Amino acid sequence: MGIKEDALKLHKENTGKLEIKSKVKIENLHDLSLAYTPGVAYVCKEIEANKEEAYTYTSKANMVAVITDGSAVLGLGNIGPYGAIPVMEGKSILLKELAGVDSIPLCLDTQDTEEIIKTCKYLAPTLGAINLEDISAPRCVTIERRLIEEMDIPVFHDDQHGTSIIVAAAFLNIERFTKRKLSEMRIVLSGTGAAGSMVAKMLKKIGVKEINAFNINGVVDKKNYDSYDFLIKELIDDGVFDTPKEHDNSLASLLKGADAFIGVSAPNLVSKEMVKSMNSNSIIFAMANPTPEISYDDAKEAGAFIVGSGRSDYPNQINNVLAFPGIFKGALSVRATKINEEMKLAAAYAIANIISDEELKEDYIVPSAFDKRVVDEVSKAVALAAIKTNVSKIK
Amino acid sequence: MGIKEDALKLHKENTGKLEIKSKVKIENLHDLSLAYTPGVAYVCKEIEANKEEAYTYTSKANMVAVITDGSAVLGLGNIGPYGAIPVMEGKSILLKELAGVDSIPLCLDTQDTEEIIKTCKYLAPTLGAINLEDISAPRCVTIERRLIEEMDIPVFHDDQHGTSIIVAAAFLNIERFTKRKLSEMRIVLSGTGAAGSMVAKMLKKIGVKEINAFNINGVVDKKNYDSYDFLIKELIDDGVFDTPKEHDNSLASLLKGADAFIGVSAPNLVSKEMVKSMNSNSIIFAMANPTPEISYDDAKEAGAFIVGSGRSDYPNQINNVLAFPGIFKGALSVRATKINEEMKLAAAYAIANIISDEELKEDYIVPSAFDKRVVDEVSKAVALAAIKTNVSKIK
Repeated sequence: MGIKEDALKLHKENTGKLEIKSKVKIENLHDLSLAYTPGVAYVCKEIEANKEEAYTYTSKANMVAVITDGSAVLGLGNIGPYGAIPVMEGKSILLKELAGVDSIPLCLDTQDTEEIIKTCKYLAPTLGAINLEDISAPRCVTIERRLIEEMDIPVFHDDQHGTSIIVAAAFLNIERFTKRKLSEMRIVLSGTGAAGSMVAKMLKKIGVKEINAFNINGVVDKKNYDSYDFLIKELIDDGVFDTPKEHDNSLASLLKGADAFIGVSAPNLVSKEMVKSMNSNSIIFAMANPTPEISYDDAKEAGAFIVGSGRSDYPNQINNVLAFPGIFKGALSVRATKINEEMKLAAAYAIANIISDEELKEDYIVPSAFDKRVVDEVSKAVALAAIKTNVSKIK
Repeated sequence: MGIKEDALKLHKENTGKLEIKSKVKIENLHDLSLAYTPGVAYVCKEIEANKEEAYTYTSKANMVAVITDGSAVLGLGNIGPYGAIPVMEGKSILLKELAGVDSIPLCLDTQDTEEIIKTCKYLAPTLGAINLEDISAPRCVTIERRLIEEMDIPVFHDDQHGTSIIVAAAFLNIERFTKRKLSEMRIVLSGTGAAGSMVAKMLKKIGVKEINAFNINGVVDKKNYDSYDFLIKELIDDGVFDTPKEHDNSLASLLKGADAFIGVSAPNLVSKEMVKSMNSNSIIFAMANPTPEISYDDAKEAGAFIVGSGRSDYPNQINNVLAFPGIFKGALSVRATKINEEMKLAAAYAIANIISDEELKEDYIVPSAFDKRVVDEVSKAVALAAIKTNVSKIK
C-alpha cells in the first residue's frame, strides 16, 4: 500500500491517535473517596487558597494544549478546524512520545482573532502551556504576541519559531563546519509568512550580515513599504529585511551572488541556473513541503555545497520535532511564564551542539529527528535560559 | 493518616490524576510519516471533504470535555476554575476507568453565561460530547439548554441529571419493593437548585402524585410566584412543583403526613420529630454532602423504612457514578446528537432493573457504585433510546 492508504488505515483502526489515561487506580470506594468525593474537596481548598498549588496537585503542571483554527494547515491551506484535528493529534502524541509532555488538541470553530485570544485565556486554568499551530499569518503573530503579553503561561506558535530555531542551528553548524562567517553572508529568503519572518529574525540574531526577502508579490523592498502587512513593515523597520541592491523584482535577480537560499514558500521556484548564479559552495535550504523549491539532486548538480529540506528522505531535514518537544519540556520543568528569545536561542545552540566537530559534514548539519539526545539537551538549555532571564517560577 | 492527608498525598505524588497517551507508536521516520507529515495530510483531506469523517479518523469519537467555571464546586461553592480542577480530573478518570470514555477537564476562567456558551461551541470540533459540571443554578440550566439547542454533539450537565436519574431509579425500585404506588405518593423536596429541580421533574415523569418544594426562602408556593427565578417559575407552570395544602413556610409543616423526603440542600435540616410526623414507613433520601439533612441512624430510629444518602459508608448511596459513565458511553456509541429525556429515563430504568425482585430490600434499593453490570446496562439502554427517538447518527 502507499502512504495515503497506510495513513488512513492507521488513523481508522485506532479511531485517532490519542487517549486519556488515569494515573491513579479507581477500583473501590476507598480509591473513589480519595480521587473523587469527599477527599478531593481538601485538594480543591488548597488550590482555592493559592492557585499556584494547581501545579502541585493537578495535571496542569505537564499539560499543553495544541490550539488551531485550521486556517493554515500544513500545505493544505484553510481547511478548517475539523480537517486540522489529525495534525494536532500528531503534535500531541509527539510531545508525549518524545518528551513525556501531556497534551490535548483543541481545534477552535472560529477564525476571529479576538475570539481566539479570548478562548485561549479562558482555557488557562487547566493548562501549563499553549502550542499555537497552523494559524494563518499575520494573524498568528498578533494572537501569539497578545497571549504572551496577557497570559502567565508559555505560549509558543510552533510554525513561527520551530523552523527558525532549527534553521538557526543549521547555520551555526554551517559556520562551524565551513569557517564561512555568518557576519559576511548574504541570504535570500523566499516566503515571508509565519515561518519565514521568524527565520529571518533568528538569523539576524545569530549574526547574519544581510537578508533579502522575496514573496508572492516579488522582492521585498522598502520602496513598496506602504503595501506591506504590519509584520513585513516591522521587519524592514527593525533591519531584519535588508533593502536589496539591484533586482528586477524576480527571485533570480536576488540570488545572483548570494551565499545562501532559504525557502519556506512554494514548489519549484528555484532552477539549477539560479543556483549556478550564486556564490560558489552555496547553501540551499528548500523547505516547501512536500515538493521543495528545488530538489536535493538538482541543487547538488548545480553546485550547491550544503542542501537541506523538510523531507525525511534527504539529508539535513529541518524537522520541527527537533525543537518543540524539548522546548515545552524545558519551559514546564521550571514553570516558565513565557518562552522568550533567549530560550529560543538556547534551543538553537543546544540543537547545533549535539553534533561534534568530528561528526559535522555537509550532509550532517542538523541532528536526526529521532536522536535521543536532542530533547534532553534542548530542555536543559531552555530551562537554564528561563532561570537566567527570570521568567521561571522554579529556580 | 486521615482522608485529607491521603487525598493530598495521592494528588501530589502523581501531580494530578490524568495523562495523555498515544495509541500509535512513533519510533522511527516511517511511523512519523504516517501519524504526522506527510501522511497525515491525506487524513486531513478526507475530513475536510466531510467533517463527519472526524468520527472515523480522530479521537473525537470517544472524547468528552468536562467543562466548568468553578462557580458551584461540590459543597464548596464558588471556588473558581483553579480550585475546581481536581474534581474535573476526577470525573475524567471515572469516565475512563468505568466506561472506557476518554475525557479532558477544561476549567474556564470566565463565569459569564454567554462567554461560556460561546467557548463550548468553539471547542466542538475536537469533542464527541460535553459534560458540564459544577456550574451554579440557574445559569447551568440556561447554558445547558442553549448548548443542546445550538450544538450537534451531546451536552449533559451532570449535576442536574445525574442525581435525578438515580433518585428516579431508587423510586422505581421502592414502588416495586414496597408495592406503594408512586401515583399515590406525596414527596417533600428540600433544595430547588440544579439537582433538586431535575429530581422533581424526573419523579413527576415516572408518575409521582405530588411534590412540595422547600428552599432557603421557605416553602415554594404559587402565591410568591413573582419572587422566584425562571426555573422555579417554570416548574410551577409545568405542574412539577405542586402548591402545598397547609403550611407555615417551614419544612416541618410540609413533612406532616408526607410519604417521602428528598434533600439536596443543607446539613441537619430534618429532626427525628419531623420524620415521626410523616406517614408510617416513610422514605428519606438525605443527600446533602458530607453531612446529610438527617443521619441514617436518626432517620431509622424515628421510624423511616427506607433511608438513602450521598455517602458511601451507609446503605442506598445515590452516587452519580452510577449514571454518567454509561450515559456518555451509550450516547457516543451511536453518535447521538443529544441526550434527551427518553435517554435519561432509559438510564433510570436500566439502573433500577440491575437489582432483581429477589435481591431488593430496604437497604439495597440502588446498585453499588462499583457494580460492573451498571455501565453496560445503562449504555445499552441509552443507545437504544437514542436510536428509537432518532437522535443517533449510527443506527
